[in-house]
Amino acid sequence: MKLLHTADWHIGRQLNSNGISLLDDQTYVLEQIIDLAKKEAVDGVIIAGDLYDRGLPPVEAVSLFNQTLNRLLFEAGIPVYAITGNHDSAKRLEFGQEFFRRQGFHLVSRLADSFQPIELEGLQIFLLPFIDPIDARVYYQDSDLSTMDGVMRRIIADMKEQFNPAKKQILVTHFAVSKGADDSDLRQKMLSETTRMVGGLTTLTSDLFADFAYVALGHIHTRYASPTETVAYSGSPLIFNKDEAKRKDVKGVYLLDISDGAIQKTFHPLKPYKDFYVLEAPYQELLQQVFYDKYPRKKARFAFDILVEERKDLEGINVRFQLEEIYGQEIIDLRIKETKAKPKMKRASFNSSQSQLAEDQLIADFFSEMTGGDQLTAYQKSLVEELLGKGEA
Amino acid sequence: MKLLHTADWHIGRQLNSNGISLLDDQTYVLEQIIDLAKKEAVDGVIIAGDLYDRGLPPVEAVSLFNQTLNRLLFEAGIPVYAITGNHDSAKRLEFGQEFFRRQGFHLVSRLADSFQPIELEGLQIFLLPFIDPIDARVYYQDSDLSTMDGVMRRIIADMKEQFNPAKKQILVTHFAVSKGADDSDLRQKMLSETTRMVGGLTTLTSDLFADFAYVALGHIHTRYASPTETVAYSGSPLIFNKDEAKRKDVKGVYLLDISDGAIQKTFHPLKPYKDFYVLEAPYQELLQQVFYDKYPRKKARFAFDILVEERKDLEGINVRFQLEEIYGQEIIDLRIKETKAKPKMKRASFNSSQSQLAEDQLIADFFSEMTGGDQLTAYQKSLVEELLGKGEA
Repeated sequence: MKLLHTADWHIGRQLNSNGISLLDDQTYVLEQIIDLAKKEAVDGVIIAGDLYDRGLPPVEAVSLFNQTLNRLLFEAGIPVYAITGNHDSAKRLEFGQEFFRRQGFHLVSRLADSFQPIELEGLQIFLLPFIDPIDARVYYQDSDLSTMDGVMRRIIADMKEQFNPAKKQILVTHFAVSKGADDSDLRQKMLSETTRMVGGLTTLTSDLFADFAYVALGHIHTRYASPTETVAYSGSPLIFNKDEAKRKDVKGVYLLDISDGAIQKTFHPLKPYKDFYVLEAPYQELLQQVFYDKYPRKKARFAFDILVEERKDLEGINVRFQLEEIYGQEIIDLRIKETKAKPKMKRASFNSSQSQLAEDQLIADFFSEMTGGDQLTAYQKSLVEELLGKGEA
Repeated sequence: MKLLHTADWHIGRQLNSNGISLLDDQTYVLEQIIDLAKKEAVDGVIIAGDLYDRGLPPVEAVSLFNQTLNRLLFEAGIPVYAITGNHDSAKRLEFGQEFFRRQGFHLVSRLADSFQPIELEGLQIFLLPFIDPIDARVYYQDSDLSTMDGVMRRIIADMKEQFNPAKKQILVTHFAVSKGADDSDLRQKMLSETTRMVGGLTTLTSDLFADFAYVALGHIHTRYASPTETVAYSGSPLIFNKDEAKRKDVKGVYLLDISDGAIQKTFHPLKPYKDFYVLEAPYQELLQQVFYDKYPRKKARFAFDILVEERKDLEGINVRFQLEEIYGQEIIDLRIKETKAKPKMKRASFNSSQSQLAEDQLIADFFSEMTGGDQLTAYQKSLVEELLGKGEA
């Protein structure tokens, strides 16, 4: 039994806030996913939530998703096992589910539909969409269910009643899951704060899922965030922002080969439609042919961190224009970094705030990753500062 | 072969602009349609466009439509033949069509999908959604296709190539169709103007459809607008506004019994969820028990045309409050009509403007009917005035 695990397609998403549509990029990688699924003759494609980027996706996004499903189901005859994520409108995606299910496209958007597994040869697949604890309180009519941890324990207990001991169980779901129960203090603290704050963000630990042979996760866009080998994020199939580009995230999907013995997991990278380079260099260097000839200019996307002694060194220069002449139109981000030391008086505090910033930024990045791109609000930032001891200092 | 013909469900519509949801009303009448389809063991339900009231219907509307389809298809095993109307988003309703088609829910939203009929025993059903002439120009790559009449002739010629002479042909479509080719001058004039103006409103004549055994129309909400016995509007299943309530429109669906010999058409009325009364009477009369006891007060909807000698007769009276005390909360419309003659000087012009108004209103009502509730713009009003000779006077 072979399954392909992917997640976080976010069809209809734009790159950063630049309004650059990723639809061509998404078409390109989805094409590869279809081809891979066909070539490997998989028995199913798992999409672990965030199919679309928004509850009301643009028509082109709906059309691409429709076309992708048609090709998988009717051209290749490959079933699809999908759930809604926090970016999807669970309600809107209810339309037609019964028609879809009868044709091998299993899409679950309601907790109530999560307990009946899909029965395959030697395998049971449980589809649990992203939910808020309040959905569980309504479903169970139990107002004591306040934490996502408690909710998940209850859900898994109910799922286990459907377990067939002669089969392996796979869970497809869409939450932030960290390793074990004893994660780093800071992360735990931060998450418990944000959980209460954003209402949807929740943290779970991988030990909860011990009864499943594999948990196909969505929500966090990089597979490096996977808590364990068998409780794993596939990551998104595309780079969505500068941070991911900077880290040179290699995007792809997992192929699961499930036999009696064990589950074998292989990563298959996807070729991006356009490469995305984040270049950090002194301004004059960026303009030199020996530097820029290394990059597929005008065929890739770029972000620049321009190093200058002082900001005024660039006065009177149309930086964006000059860079566009060389690198092409898709300059996603342009930042200027001053390298000259600040006057002595301020240096001490500058340094301390630098290291502070790094930690702040770490949390902000992590938050953005977890929420699929949201920024911390002023209130959330103040809580982070408090956690880091900055508020008390 | 038995078919049920309905149209213009406009799920998600609100009553007038009062924000009163018709969802309970729609649930109630759709229930009756399902029951009738089951009781009569029809071979299919035709929905001739305007499934929803808007391109982006509220989730409750999507849910009701979903549930209605599930009941027809999976509970009763009755196929559904539907098209998109001018109120539906053709693009958004493309999602899942292939899944739907394979399960007996035939939904066509693109001209390109209109030429392949659904083949039934002794019958071919062609599904032609509401389109704009520009869609036809794109499809045929012919910029000369400017009128809807020309477009329809071309479409029907192409459909006829698929005609099986051993079968009868049924067309399901969603346009304004008037009787014959020689309709009243005013209506023709008005329509030719508005066609150009609103870009979507179009007029066709019933003689175009001579080759079809039956044309199941949607668009105009009353079956009394049907051009002929076999080119017919079923009307909407619900009263949507005060004008329809005033005319005491009886809403319902058609049952078609198609045998070798002929097509037999029977009207089946639907019971409304709430009755809607438009009462015109002097104010004091409305407050008298002998008057109001005739009506199912607090269980129905009301609109009032209150006759008073002069508007000032009602000064200091909270009319809405007094009427709500008696008739209930659902007062949809409240108008005051002065009966006292105006001073002599102005009477002549008042009378002339009265008769003028009547004709204006007739056209405005008709326009609203045709467009599913739109009001004439200032520019359109001026054209109507010109047509009526008011602009020249």
